[in-house]
Amino acid sequence: MRADSSNSSSSLAVGVDLGGTKLAVCVVDSHGAFLYRQKFPVEKQTPSQSFEQISDAISDALNRASQTPGKIMGIGMVVPGIFDVTTGMAWAPNLWGDQQIPLRDALEARLPLPLTIESDRSGYVLGEHWLGAGRGLDDIVFMAVGTGIGLGILTGGRIYSGAHGIAGAIGWFAVDTRKLDIYRQMGCLEAESAGPAVAMKAAAQLRAGRSSLLNDWWAGQLEHISTESVVEAARQGDTLALEVMHEVACYLGMGVANVISLLNPQLVVLGGGLLQAADLILEPLRREAAEWAQPVAMKKTRIEVSRLGEDAGLLGAARLGFLHHLTE
Amino acid sequence: MRADSSNSSSSLAVGVDLGGTKLAVCVVDSHGAFLYRQKFPVEKQTPSQSFEQISDAISDALNRASQTPGKIMGIGMVVPGIFDVTTGMAWAPNLWGDQQIPLRDALEARLPLPLTIESDRSGYVLGEHWLGAGRGLDDIVFMAVGTGIGLGILTGGRIYSGAHGIAGAIGWFAVDTRKLDIYRQMGCLEAESAGPAVAMKAAAQLRAGRSSLLNDWWAGQLEHISTESVVEAARQGDTLALEVMHEVACYLGMGVANVISLLNPQLVVLGGGLLQAADLILEPLRREAAEWAQPVAMKKTRIEVSRLGEDAGLLGAARLGFLHHLTE
Repeated sequence: MRADSSNSSSSLAVGVDLGGTKLAVCVVDSHGAFLYRQKFPVEKQTPSQSFEQISDAISDALNRASQTPGKIMGIGMVVPGIFDVTTGMAWAPNLWGDQQIPLRDALEARLPLPLTIESDRSGYVLGEHWLGAGRGLDDIVFMAVGTGIGLGILTGGRIYSGAHGIAGAIGWFAVDTRKLDIYRQMGCLEAESAGPAVAMKAAAQLRAGRSSLLNDWWAGQLEHISTESVVEAARQGDTLALEVMHEVACYLGMGVANVISLLNPQLVVLGGGLLQAADLILEPLRREAAEWAQPVAMKKTRIEVSRLGEDAGLLGAARLGFLHHLTE
Repeated sequence: MRADSSNSSSSLAVGVDLGGTKLAVCVVDSHGAFLYRQKFPVEKQTPSQSFEQISDAISDALNRASQTPGKIMGIGMVVPGIFDVTTGMAWAPNLWGDQQIPLRDALEARLPLPLTIESDRSGYVLGEHWLGAGRGLDDIVFMAVGTGIGLGILTGGRIYSGAHGIAGAIGWFAVDTRKLDIYRQMGCLEAESAGPAVAMKAAAQLRAGRSSLLNDWWAGQLEHISTESVVEAARQGDTLALEVMHEVACYLGMGVANVISLLNPQLVVLGGGLLQAADLILEPLRREAAEWAQPVAMKKTRIEVSRLGEDAGLLGAARLGFLHHLTE
């Protein structure tokens, strides 16, 4: 869909960001200002419990919106996993196990307004395009690095989600010929450079006898070492932690390079939980990307950190609420 | 642009495929049947010599077409290197050295009909979409493996060429952490698996003392060993040559996997000179791709060899002649 449909200043939209552990709902105006926002915890539940929780939360938001001037243009929602816009089916194992569920049909039956759903990574890139680092640019991507790695893609001002909603699954990028077993479980790039990889790499080094601040902090419980603590140790100058962060940044740089060579975007936005360590990651990532990417495409793009942080998905969802036309 | 604009059966188009060593020109009807085709050798020449040669060849084709019933709808052309559809500037070092030239403006000034230009890889995918393996599918890619490696991309029935015409430069994919010097010259994937890599890998092994049929065929002149002879030796069961072909196929499989994970296409078409050895490459490539790609996206796509062979670009160019609307 076009991401730049016009909308008057008195129009509002409802945004819904469904995550693995929380449901965020908001009402925003056409400038992206929040008039209402609320978060709810989400547990593993049946699909019909999910439908109930989501439609209740949306009803609350609509009630709240009805008390303010302005017209609700629509409801936008972003979801984790795989969402197929042609069928309206969602697949998100963290929420509903290994089944596809008819998310759009079920919710539309419960709601009084049009509902547009996209994947969370598409939401991130829409949010940045609307209000963040990507304003005014029509060929941008958002690389989300958290417990997983995914890419939201905007080409010519339109969301691109592939033939079956799976586009942007770049956690599966092949960037290392070693073929470790773990690559088959989650993808090579994700195994080497998503959030959990930081803790795993550090733990492996500590088990091998390397010295580090982390040995004191996690004495006797290396299996519980957290990514956050590795980041903290690196900030305190710990050599091992710095090495781990550098290695992860380099793999991420290879991933970004592959995105740049294939898509030739104007801008790569980096976000997700691990980018809270952007102070450690951004520069080595940029250097590494420049060593691999097609040189002209590299020179013509920028690599920046998200300006919207945790709100990128929720604002992208609200943006979907303003947009009327589906893909094309 | 939409690739499925309708056109009546009495309409014709001129197609032009400009390569590094030859210029092919054709007139086709709306079913893609050739009414006229001609090839001319191309040498390194000045831009204005190129403009002259190309417009002369097109004029010949238009003359020929004027002698047959039917109306010429337009002229389509595909070019190597980087073509920026927004500016009409072309960059093709094999033809014009390291300068950008105003190809579209210069040719349009010499021609009596609308001219549409795209990169050769975009032409390949348009050709396959129109008349080849991709008929009826709107999300397909064409991976061309010859002296270089490039990807033509059709998403939602439209050519995707990136913000500056560089999209699909997947010869630059980072797929091996070794960082060999040669990767910086041509890109990692291209260094490991384009046509010339076959000869280089074989020569390196022979210099290291490996036995092979190739030692007899190329005694004393290993520096001249050809990719074709390695393919031939592999077909005769030569162990070294088979190993080289397998290694190249595996790298190509990693590249295809990355395309599938990022773009989630319905179909990956393989073409270009090296695919004349599809008997040696296709199966190991498919197996390797399946070991790396996002599993659902992998299951939902097919990997096939071009049905149009050398004509993919020329037919894609002619298809451009039928299409009226530029990107979007």
